[in-house]
Amino acid sequence: MTIKLVVLYTQPNDGDVFDEHYLGVHAPLVEKIPGLQRFEGARIVAAPDGGEQTYFRIAELYFSDLAALQAALVSDEGQATSGDFQQIAPPGSRMFIANVDD
Amino acid sequence: MTIKLVVLYTQPNDGDVFDEHYLGVHAPLVEKIPGLQRFEGARIVAAPDGGEQTYFRIAELYFSDLAALQAALVSDEGQATSGDFQQIAPPGSRMFIANVDD
Repeated sequence: MTIKLVVLYTQPNDGDVFDEHYLGVHAPLVEKIPGLQRFEGARIVAAPDGGEQTYFRIAELYFSDLAALQAALVSDEGQATSGDFQQIAPPGSRMFIANVDD
Repeated sequence: MTIKLVVLYTQPNDGDVFDEHYLGVHAPLVEKIPGLQRFEGARIVAAPDGGEQTYFRIAELYFSDLAALQAALVSDEGQATSGDFQQIAPPGSRMFIANVDD
């Protein structure tokens, strides 16, 4: 069963400044995480439900199973990524683990 | 540029009852939406940031571009899916449109 780490970034002060770091520094750190099967980032552009555009970005990191995800988070590369996340994630940003439907 | 509709479902009263309808009725409606390139559903199992498990499910519907997504939403199949969403989505559920990074 594929599992993914879902990261929701709230709105930064300046989206373009955020993305310069996110795409230039953060994403390359993510790509080095051991056991990572796939990484998909996306920039939120609208809230068609008419609600607040609460989140600026969504990122998803795919692993083969929960054990692989947990090992990734405690690896040196995972810790480096996590440290950078702490630096850049605006307050209220969230992180979830989800089982992908078969 | 691939675009996706991201749906975040908040916690239902009974997750297993919700999933019975979601997997048995809602997902098949989604699969009929014209122009849909890929559909990925996932059940959230943890919040590793230590925060509240705000969301129960995440669903992502992929389209080739914004025009295809907008056409899908107003199609008969899109409207049928939207009607079912209104029935099942717990209060506070959200919907966003996001540009997937290249």
